[in-house]
Amino acid sequence: MDNYQVGDLVSIKTENTQYIGIVMPSLDEDILVIKMKNGYNVGISKRRIVSIEKIEGSKTPKYRKPEVIFENKGNLKNISILSTGGTVASRVDYNTGAVHPAFTAEDLILAFPELLEIGNILGRPLMNILSENILPLHWKRIAEEIKREVENGAEGIVITHGTDTMHYTAAALSFMVETNIPVVLVGAQRSSDRPSSDAPLNLISAVMVATEPIKGVYVVMHGESGDTFTYLHEGVKVRKYHTSRRDAFRSVNTIPIAKIYPTSRRIEYIREVNNKVEGEDPKVEINTNLEERVALIKIYPGIEGDIIDYYVDKGYKGILLEGTGLGHAPETIFNNIKYAIDSGLLVAMASQCINGRVNMNVYSNGRKLLRLGVIPCEDMLPEVALVKMMYLLGNYSVEEAKKLLTENLKGEITLRTRFDCY
Amino acid sequence: MDNYQVGDLVSIKTENTQYIGIVMPSLDEDILVIKMKNGYNVGISKRRIVSIEKIEGSKTPKYRKPEVIFENKGNLKNISILSTGGTVASRVDYNTGAVHPAFTAEDLILAFPELLEIGNILGRPLMNILSENILPLHWKRIAEEIKREVENGAEGIVITHGTDTMHYTAAALSFMVETNIPVVLVGAQRSSDRPSSDAPLNLISAVMVATEPIKGVYVVMHGESGDTFTYLHEGVKVRKYHTSRRDAFRSVNTIPIAKIYPTSRRIEYIREVNNKVEGEDPKVEINTNLEERVALIKIYPGIEGDIIDYYVDKGYKGILLEGTGLGHAPETIFNNIKYAIDSGLLVAMASQCINGRVNMNVYSNGRKLLRLGVIPCEDMLPEVALVKMMYLLGNYSVEEAKKLLTENLKGEITLRTRFDCY
Repeated sequence: MDNYQVGDLVSIKTENTQYIGIVMPSLDEDILVIKMKNGYNVGISKRRIVSIEKIEGSKTPKYRKPEVIFENKGNLKNISILSTGGTVASRVDYNTGAVHPAFTAEDLILAFPELLEIGNILGRPLMNILSENILPLHWKRIAEEIKREVENGAEGIVITHGTDTMHYTAAALSFMVETNIPVVLVGAQRSSDRPSSDAPLNLISAVMVATEPIKGVYVVMHGESGDTFTYLHEGVKVRKYHTSRRDAFRSVNTIPIAKIYPTSRRIEYIREVNNKVEGEDPKVEINTNLEERVALIKIYPGIEGDIIDYYVDKGYKGILLEGTGLGHAPETIFNNIKYAIDSGLLVAMASQCINGRVNMNVYSNGRKLLRLGVIPCEDMLPEVALVKMMYLLGNYSVEEAKKLLTENLKGEITLRTRFDCY
Repeated sequence: MDNYQVGDLVSIKTENTQYIGIVMPSLDEDILVIKMKNGYNVGISKRRIVSIEKIEGSKTPKYRKPEVIFENKGNLKNISILSTGGTVASRVDYNTGAVHPAFTAEDLILAFPELLEIGNILGRPLMNILSENILPLHWKRIAEEIKREVENGAEGIVITHGTDTMHYTAAALSFMVETNIPVVLVGAQRSSDRPSSDAPLNLISAVMVATEPIKGVYVVMHGESGDTFTYLHEGVKVRKYHTSRRDAFRSVNTIPIAKIYPTSRRIEYIREVNNKVEGEDPKVEINTNLEERVALIKIYPGIEGDIIDYYVDKGYKGILLEGTGLGHAPETIFNNIKYAIDSGLLVAMASQCINGRVNMNVYSNGRKLLRLGVIPCEDMLPEVALVKMMYLLGNYSVEEAKKLLTENLKGEITLRTRFDCY
């Protein structure tokens, strides 16, 4: 049985199935991992193996594309893990103490072979970028790669991502990607080579979610400071709320969708979720048109209004004001707001309170802003409203965008806020 | 005993004390309220009154300055309530449904006569401004009025304030006012004439705190959605976290100082507080120098760096970046940040996560920003860091301001964050 080594092309027979693929390194002695022709990694319990036959020895120190004779007949789903960089796939440089993005998704699978119990795993690095450097152009590329994966047979997608801007990316993908399978963003607050790393549990949880019969874009991250459970958040209702804690992400103006217990492989849904239509084949449409000339301006006492003029004169198409309270801005900048709207820009209002809903009918300040034509963003997070404006202005006229901004497209606006989410 | 009416100048004798002042309207039949010469309102239980003698009848429909023969000999402290506007002192216009600032502090006392059981109350309107329109110039005026009150005998000060920017004002006063008595900002999320108004309990709590032997600037607001208790927050560690809930304010990166049970007049301290030195007379120093040319820029994916150049070329002295995660900004704007620092501006970094501490040594992005000369704002709230920069740049050189920005001046930086505050 041990007549093979890493890199060999082998034919493996179990009682029901024949697999052909290249032997991969495995950290678990009881599991043989092979990469099949379609790129997915399959983990096979050695107890199930009836015979292993070497077809061709390792020719290069790198793996090469294997050929496959029989597809995996197991009932595990094909899950693609696309890595973009960030702590979940990074290691500490012990010379400098700094953290560098380093691991590929492939490395992650090797580090966490239990992933192969959950799905047939294909890992592919898309880019290697700390999320603080992620730009809208990267959102487009990720959307395109999601499309490619679904068309190549993926039934669930996991995207490893730095945590700094993961919620911006999740919101962007929510609007840009229309699919009937789960797309799960996952990150880590502590790098994979640290004992306190949250990478393993987060990643296992994300892959579990990617096999669920749900659709849409989600974020999975630690749910508490311990290692008991992770949370499944809606991609348009989540933000990074803490600089360093592992439970840094929180659902805002709603509660998480589910608690995930990765050790016992159990998912406990705690509210409604968008279910996949049973029996439907995976499908995907993307729309990568974005208007990047949208500015987010946070309001503060003493802010000068000419910053708005600056963006108008620069050719910007939209401005999101992160106002105070129910959606207010100092009267001293009303003329500048009027200039922007008169110039044809979409000017919208979210609240820097973060929690709660914009309501500009309560105070005279808000009512004046409404009369100027400022669009209230309901209970949308400022980060989500910004991204939604980029999406809408990339695809619709300003008038259409104004209308759609206040309509719920992807769960970003809830009609009535739950009482138990603050 | 009932030979008097509102507006009369009367002499009242109790067993121990004689009061002379003008009769005020009172909603509580058992309490006689008079305004004394020093302006403070005193509530006297009618059961304690031995005799009332009318000195002079009401001459005008308005109250006039009374003369006093004996000072109040009770052991209640003199508390000044200064109103600036906002919901705590507002009413609903039932024609339009909009809320207008309306009540003066004087009206509040009349509406809540129980305040007079807690202190001798002087109410004075300073301005009538919704807090979304408050500017740094108003902070200066409030500081000056606090000084005036302390010099006129106030032993505790309550400032009623709109909630939108109350935390900005609290931070500003923390840096601008050096005093050994409590200065308590208080607001309301629902206007005083609504049954669900939080104004009464918040105001009573604030006056209770103003009589405590503590010093510094605080915020008092509802502690939960019910009417059981309010929280005492440190003025430099609190923010408005919800657009509409009565428990909208939260201490961030620390816990509240105390729970206040206004119904039972009980204050339960839950962590350390700055105590007033016993026996010391009230004193106050103010420093109203502010550099208003400080901008807050919130970072987001795709932000263009020339907005920084714009502020530099406009003559700004400081820029606070509200970065992502541990204190990051996209590399695409590093050159603009360098331009600002090379031009002599103070460029600092707080986190849009809100919770947690900036640590720019962990990732390469942060390390590069540190090398450029960006100053990390530790665990300061962005709102507080902005106001602190205005204060420091108004009083010190850029080099001194850089140093002081990372030092704890008024409790705005904690050395080690409590685990139980997230």
